[in-house]
Amino acid sequence: MTLIVLTGIPGSGSTTILNKVLEDVDYLHLNYGDIMTEIAIEENIVDDRDQLRKLSPEIQKTIQKKAARRINEKSQSNNVIVDTHCTILTPSGFLPGLPVWVLEELLPDIFILIEANPDEIIYRRLDDTSRIRDIESAKDIKLHQEMNRAASMAYATLTGATVKIVQNHDLHLKSTVSKVVDLLKN
Amino acid sequence: MTLIVLTGIPGSGSTTILNKVLEDVDYLHLNYGDIMTEIAIEENIVDDRDQLRKLSPEIQKTIQKKAARRINEKSQSNNVIVDTHCTILTPSGFLPGLPVWVLEELLPDIFILIEANPDEIIYRRLDDTSRIRDIESAKDIKLHQEMNRAASMAYATLTGATVKIVQNHDLHLKSTVSKVVDLLKN
Amino acid sequence: MTLIVLTGIPGSGSTTILNKVLEDVDYLHLNYGDIMTEIAIEENIVDDRDQLRKLSPEIQKTIQKKAARRINEKSQSNNVIVDTHCTILTPSGFLPGLPVWVLEELLPDIFILIEANPDEIIYRRLDDTSRIRDIESAKDIKLHQEMNRAASMAYATLTGATVKIVQNHDLHLKSTVSKVVDLLKN
Repeated sequence: MTLIVLTGIPGSGSTTILNKVLEDVDYLHLNYGDIMTEIAIEENIVDDRDQLRKLSPEIQKTIQKKAARRINEKSQSNNVIVDTHCTILTPSGFLPGLPVWVLEELLPDIFILIEANPDEIIYRRLDDTSRIRDIESAKDIKLHQEMNRAASMAYATLTGATVKIVQNHDLHLKSTVSKVVDLLKN
Repeated sequence: MTLIVLTGIPGSGSTTILNKVLEDVDYLHLNYGDIMTEIAIEENIVDDRDQLRKLSPEIQKTIQKKAARRINEKSQSNNVIVDTHCTILTPSGFLPGLPVWVLEELLPDIFILIEANPDEIIYRRLDDTSRIRDIESAKDIKLHQEMNRAASMAYATLTGATVKIVQNHDLHLKSTVSKVVDLLKN
Repeated sequence: MTLIVLTGIPGSGSTTILNKVLEDVDYLHLNYGDIMTEIAIEENIVDDRDQLRKLSPEIQKTIQKKAARRINEKSQSNNVIVDTHCTILTPSGFLPGLPVWVLEELLPDIFILIEANPDEIIYRRLDDTSRIRDIESAKDIKLHQEMNRAASMAYATLTGATVKIVQNHDLHLKSTVSKVVDLLKN
């Protein structure tokens, strides 16, 4: 069984890729934040997802670990693909989405980083009127993707997983999806 | 309480930023090397800072850990800003300023990397006649900043801290300082 | 005693550098894969090196650890230079050559990354008719070297070792070799 972590910054198209890929592969799809919410609700810590981020760092850490363990358990009997963030851009800087205490429970096989050119990402964000997003410059987008690459190699060193970078360029969605499908079928 | 680690390569202007920022925030400022020296003198291991680097790696490691623990203890009752090096350029290559045994005791909240363009850094180094510095090419400076970014994401993965990159460009000191002040006040 | 890990992607010229350097320094040369094979044969797990990669991940991990320990033991009484891969380009992405369980046993002092310009690497690969290699674009080669830099800083953070990047440009072999020799003699 294979456990895949799929990430991509907003506008990279990782969600589109994920939905297309799931049509073609036999993988259980889990969202890391959903599993955290599920656990926090079960334990009567929160009522909904928005309350999660208001918890103390120590409680968040405990829930993160439990979510990682639950996902790993599910991956014992299913191929699993988890979507989450490699790093999250916060006002205090880049926050690692998969700190060491998560990695040690999750033990994924492959980290997939969906990337695109900064200008492609800017246009996609402008087109996506469903979400309000801060305007980021091409330079900031390039930096975020660069920091994600560095973070992913730290994650790989701590788990032995591989890091696969997949370019999701405009007009190539079909071939990009089929690359990811091939990766998941092998 | 917040524990900040502030770093920047020589010529990045991190010391200037630090001094200006300290005028506006209520933070205890500690220098990592000073705390190491303090501990080594207390334990009668050295008489002054210069002797630190002549100690065996094992003894240095023990002092590094104790310094990290002391800083963390101080951060329980104060907001603390530590200045140190992200990586140190040595003849044997880039030495991580915050190896895992330091990180596990220090447990910082935010790593701030003060950066500037390589040409800005070259001019600032030429202007600084108080220190004798090796001449580094723009390419070497770019590489050092790149390695610091990678190192900082490894540090973040091991601690859960965020990494904030702050550009300190010529003629923008005031706005750069106020960005860092805002970061420290939040 | 010093324990060096020497790496370079195919076409970087790391093997050429290694052979030249060994003429001038008193170092025991070990190949990481050879030591793994040696251990797996001693323990009657495989008959030859090719069978190594067919073993389960868990058994491979055990052999990796034992190989790292054996190399570290040899480095107690000899200066040792190990050649291996920083990351390995697999169909599933970049696989770290030195995951945390290897690093914790190996405890090297210096990681040397031999690099060259992507175009130099492409020409060298075309010239090397002894091996069949996939054609990689300059962009892919640049990415691989970038990921190796990030991985090496994660390795350094976990061990306290330094990372030395050495450019091996065409027509400069002699001075490159002497740089590495100087590094090993200090």
